[in-house]
Amino acid sequence: MQYNPPKGTRDFYPSDMALQNMLFTAWRETALRFGFEEYEGPMFEHLEVFTRKSGDEIVKQLYNFKDKSDRELALRPEITPTLARMVASKGRELRKPVKWFSIPRLFRYERMQRGRLREFFQYNLDIMGEPSVSAEAEIVAAAVSLIESFGAKKSEFRVRVNSRRLMRALLLAIPISEERLDKAYGVLDRRAKTDAEGLKQLYADAGFSESERDSIESIFSIKTLAEIGEKWGNNEEVAASLADLHKFFSLVNAYGIIECVIYDPAIVRGLAYYTGIVFEIHDTAGELRAMAGGGRYDNLIGLFGGEPTPAVGFGMGDAVITEFLKDRGMIPQYKKECDAFIVTFEKDNMTPSIQMATLLRSKGFSVEFSLKQANFKKQMEAAQNAKFAVFVGGEEWERGEVKIKNMKSGEEKLVGKLSDELIQILSGK
Amino acid sequence: MQYNPPKGTRDFYPSDMALQNMLFTAWRETALRFGFEEYEGPMFEHLEVFTRKSGDEIVKQLYNFKDKSDRELALRPEITPTLARMVASKGRELRKPVKWFSIPRLFRYERMQRGRLREFFQYNLDIMGEPSVSAEAEIVAAAVSLIESFGAKKSEFRVRVNSRRLMRALLLAIPISEERLDKAYGVLDRRAKTDAEGLKQLYADAGFSESERDSIESIFSIKTLAEIGEKWGNNEEVAASLADLHKFFSLVNAYGIIECVIYDPAIVRGLAYYTGIVFEIHDTAGELRAMAGGGRYDNLIGLFGGEPTPAVGFGMGDAVITEFLKDRGMIPQYKKECDAFIVTFEKDNMTPSIQMATLLRSKGFSVEFSLKQANFKKQMEAAQNAKFAVFVGGEEWERGEVKIKNMKSGEEKLVGKLSDELIQILSGK
Repeated sequence: MQYNPPKGTRDFYPSDMALQNMLFTAWRETALRFGFEEYEGPMFEHLEVFTRKSGDEIVKQLYNFKDKSDRELALRPEITPTLARMVASKGRELRKPVKWFSIPRLFRYERMQRGRLREFFQYNLDIMGEPSVSAEAEIVAAAVSLIESFGAKKSEFRVRVNSRRLMRALLLAIPISEERLDKAYGVLDRRAKTDAEGLKQLYADAGFSESERDSIESIFSIKTLAEIGEKWGNNEEVAASLADLHKFFSLVNAYGIIECVIYDPAIVRGLAYYTGIVFEIHDTAGELRAMAGGGRYDNLIGLFGGEPTPAVGFGMGDAVITEFLKDRGMIPQYKKECDAFIVTFEKDNMTPSIQMATLLRSKGFSVEFSLKQANFKKQMEAAQNAKFAVFVGGEEWERGEVKIKNMKSGEEKLVGKLSDELIQILSGK
Repeated sequence: MQYNPPKGTRDFYPSDMALQNMLFTAWRETALRFGFEEYEGPMFEHLEVFTRKSGDEIVKQLYNFKDKSDRELALRPEITPTLARMVASKGRELRKPVKWFSIPRLFRYERMQRGRLREFFQYNLDIMGEPSVSAEAEIVAAAVSLIESFGAKKSEFRVRVNSRRLMRALLLAIPISEERLDKAYGVLDRRAKTDAEGLKQLYADAGFSESERDSIESIFSIKTLAEIGEKWGNNEEVAASLADLHKFFSLVNAYGIIECVIYDPAIVRGLAYYTGIVFEIHDTAGELRAMAGGGRYDNLIGLFGGEPTPAVGFGMGDAVITEFLKDRGMIPQYKKECDAFIVTFEKDNMTPSIQMATLLRSKGFSVEFSLKQANFKKQMEAAQNAKFAVFVGGEEWERGEVKIKNMKSGEEKLVGKLSDELIQILSGK
């Protein structure tokens, strides 16, 4: 008998669930403040939906299976293909720009490590139908506002920004041929995690000559957009993507978040489908994996049979942000709590407790009472997780009165069981 | 290319998701009012977790598969086995009674019909550790309060209650032997959906003689608990289970919900693991399948290696309750809405819009503005989904002022962009 959850998955006991709900609430509230609407899709899709976007290689990381009618299905490793499918199938019915968010549960069969699980939640924001970098700026602003809403300071994290379009123009200028660009992105995505020797090996394995390698590496010796402009500004594509980046940074400045958004040529993102600005969010201390990432993907919705639709997306898993918040003491201690616990002196008569509980629950309060006939001491123990104890029974109850006790201050008061005063005390007014 | 979600699953566009969220919010709020804490588990479990509870027969209804390390896994068809596993593995650490709820997504490979999908959500309430029928009463009261919270009247639905313990005692008294009880429950669970001829066939197929059949059917000719008491009250088990039912109904009376809770010998519930009171909730009109069901299951947690723990559970899927609410016009029309839409006269300058949006979002308002440079008319069109339009730019903006317009009444006012007055107007105060 297996008493544990499957490897890479988690049980969420109430204290764990409270943490998840804190996260989900912040995710949802931020999305709503920025005018995003919520969507969801199936937990599994036809396998083809994932291979179409990411190639057959993706199957290695999938929980894929056949259903009892031999359909090839797979648990979703990301929600973007579902989103593309949904948007493509509605076509022009949807008023652009579409601003949607979701909190999907995702599944990846991967090697386990800190901040990486096989089953996890991911916050997704996407803006579809807007070609200008105002979409990227809006999404980055939402991401920053989210992290600040947890109590983090702008100095504690960095949004690292690059442009796939710029990288592409620079690589083509070297020249690296169009067909070899994906190989180059593959090397660059692993660049930061590798030492000098390992990096040489990566380049060699990907089929780049030493001179190509040195040319690519020279891009990384340049740390500012101004320098890139000086050196490659005559290249039309380079100039156009630099203009995009400058526009993006000027918008970010208007949002008041420029201090935590920086240009970083090392950000390329692994996925092949990005076409414009890409970004990752890291803790400034550099102790954790990226806590979020995203960018522009203008070709995906067309790939799913829809009209070509420019799009910008953002994803944040639940694991790394939780580590980030835990390390900084930003996660409140869970404590089961209800508004009122009903205590009774009556023996073998639950009626007053039930009636009082029902009355207060109908006003929206969270109320409990002892489901078994328990003595006064036991009831008071159980009442410790309540803000107030409400004593019912005896002559007071017959007169229509109850005693209410503030469990923190110890203050007690006799009030009418149907009185506004009782409601006001419970509301903390 | 597959443009549709897999058979039996759904895409949730924002209007669909709004309906789901309305449901989830009502489910969650009711659970919290009644003092339940939220938990969750993995979306799939080791196959054994499900076969242990329900036998190998259940595999026919499962999405089961092997992962890449040859683990036998299955998408969960219900969360109760996960709950039993989680409670069993914590043992005495958990303070009893445990009152937990969850809103799991579940998967059953079944024939499709109205109100039945292959992927759905289910609301679960469970009380563990309380042997008395006060647990059943508390859960039924929560269920009734939930349905009323949607706006339904008590006359529109019925909680139909029976006791598996009573049925068992009556069947044993016929006598039907212990080993054949499950077969009898199987027939009884399908009894209401069958005509007279079909019913005879069901009994015959399950191996019951004609006289046994008539004896079992005679139970159903009795409509009140009093008659059962008169006829079989000398049987100790019958008397004990009748006492339980009487106690349950007296508690239900204290909760003030007796008018919609009735005894119905036809309710047996298909699952083998119920041990005491069972119930189903039906629309009074009898047009829909059961919208919820549950009962006492005292042996399950022991089966998962935990201490024997009495338990009562309740489940409500999202499909039938949605049909019920739709039929009664209780589902509000979805409309995308934000608090404020920022409109600007400025050309090629998004800074005032972004600054105003950022300011209001930081106060918790939901705010949008045009991400592309659009003319005034287009912006006003987009502002139609907002409660207020806020006009920024020009000399007023330079002076620190904005005009705010109530989109419903048309009322306009010039206010300071940082003023309390602006916040008060937006808050609807």
